[in-house]
Amino acid sequence: MAGLQKDAEEIDSGRILAVFERAAEAAARHTLPFFRTALGIANKAAHGFDPVTEADRAAERAIREVIATAFPDHGIIGEELGETRSASPYVWLVDPIDGTRAFISGLPLWGTLIGLTRSGRAIAGLMSQPYLGESFFAAGGVARLRRGTTAGPLQVSGVTSLASARLATTSPRLFESPQSRAAYDAVEARARVTRYGTDCYGYCMLAAGHVDLVIEEGLQPFDIAALIPIIEAAGGVITTWRSGRAEGGGQIVAAATPALHAQASELLAPAAH
Amino acid sequence: MAGLQKDAEEIDSGRILAVFERAAEAAARHTLPFFRTALGIANKAAHGFDPVTEADRAAERAIREVIATAFPDHGIIGEELGETRSASPYVWLVDPIDGTRAFISGLPLWGTLIGLTRSGRAIAGLMSQPYLGESFFAAGGVARLRRGTTAGPLQVSGVTSLASARLATTSPRLFESPQSRAAYDAVEARARVTRYGTDCYGYCMLAAGHVDLVIEEGLQPFDIAALIPIIEAAGGVITTWRSGRAEGGGQIVAAATPALHAQASELLAPAAH
Repeated sequence: MAGLQKDAEEIDSGRILAVFERAAEAAARHTLPFFRTALGIANKAAHGFDPVTEADRAAERAIREVIATAFPDHGIIGEELGETRSASPYVWLVDPIDGTRAFISGLPLWGTLIGLTRSGRAIAGLMSQPYLGESFFAAGGVARLRRGTTAGPLQVSGVTSLASARLATTSPRLFESPQSRAAYDAVEARARVTRYGTDCYGYCMLAAGHVDLVIEEGLQPFDIAALIPIIEAAGGVITTWRSGRAEGGGQIVAAATPALHAQASELLAPAAH
Repeated sequence: MAGLQKDAEEIDSGRILAVFERAAEAAARHTLPFFRTALGIANKAAHGFDPVTEADRAAERAIREVIATAFPDHGIIGEELGETRSASPYVWLVDPIDGTRAFISGLPLWGTLIGLTRSGRAIAGLMSQPYLGESFFAAGGVARLRRGTTAGPLQVSGVTSLASARLATTSPRLFESPQSRAAYDAVEARARVTRYGTDCYGYCMLAAGHVDLVIEEGLQPFDIAALIPIIEAAGGVITTWRSGRAEGGGQIVAAATPALHAQASELLAPAAH
């Protein structure tokens, strides 16, 4: 019980940010040497294409080591290597390379995602893009972008209407049913401009005020946990299409303002589950 | 006649590369300060969304000045400011911000395009991405990528089959008719992986060997002229869907190898015009 009570106490943001920094550096040592080079691609999905690289696995191992050293009783769930102590009050969710399609196509919009949940709620997160030297991160309710040696606060835009909104999604092909595709299309048809191919980077541009709306489906918890605190601390709203908490993944809508979130959610409602 | 003959003589690659470098630097001074900031967007298209920024116009003016200083009798055609001396044997084609949607969404995949044609044929080209500090360029049959202070040759991949190909396109929504969309979809369905949202950056990743195939429609000459020499000097093939020269824009297919180009072209043929 003493151990559990200790775990459930609040953790100092500085300790979390130190883990983010060390873990991102450790991951980059495994991802960057494989970016824009010939890659050994394994096909882990029985159906369809799901690229996994050696870089992906090695980066996750390195991230897990950093977390386990700093917080040995915390849980870790990773895209590549499964769950460890996932019943702990604190659980880290890790996607070493979010956007593997971007990664294997040479495009620098993939990212290393590390989120921290407390009793199932995302409280801190990091998106690291080492080729650009960019880190988007949040802890203790503060969200920041660091690029090289400069850093600044993240702040969503004030866009409240769909007609003015810049919409981002990874691919319209990723919507899983004709209903959800139609619901997404209804939003896209009303948005000012749409940009595809964004993965985790789209959510970070939302936090930074350059994108106003992100809509996706079929996300895993480790795809989204790191991004929730970044968006929330930057002043944005991120939920499921049913306006529930986003930690479970699935259908996700993230918006710069509650008004914009409400407009998008109304159009997505017929396909929300 | 003496002037025309002088114009039609070959220009030293070093002089062209010097103009590329100066023009890219001059353009970046106008584009970078507006990237990832609040922008004044004008809507220049009567139908649909076509964002144009002050940065776009100012950058084109700066590029034109550099070209006109170095080659006062050459023609210039720009996206924003129209044609000057376009009947000259040498004509420069300029798109100060290719990928304005990426630009206004904070995504660093837009580029400054400068191409040089001689009697209508693209002989040299530059794609500059100043936020990343990357320049992809070709002159005299040699294609290179410079990032910061390091540079190296560009070389396409050896991928010969559609089943192994990484396909890039800006958006499947940009295909202009049900026929061309169906033809594109037939290629995408057979490709290994597809990436959207690429604009000029997709062609440069093709030249660099990370993307194997790019298919687009509705391009303007200034969207493509700069990219043709980069792809050709890197060993790739770029033509219209009817296998004609690509300088006129329109329907474009670019591939790493002639075999891959042939496979894609066969599927695109029913919609080629």
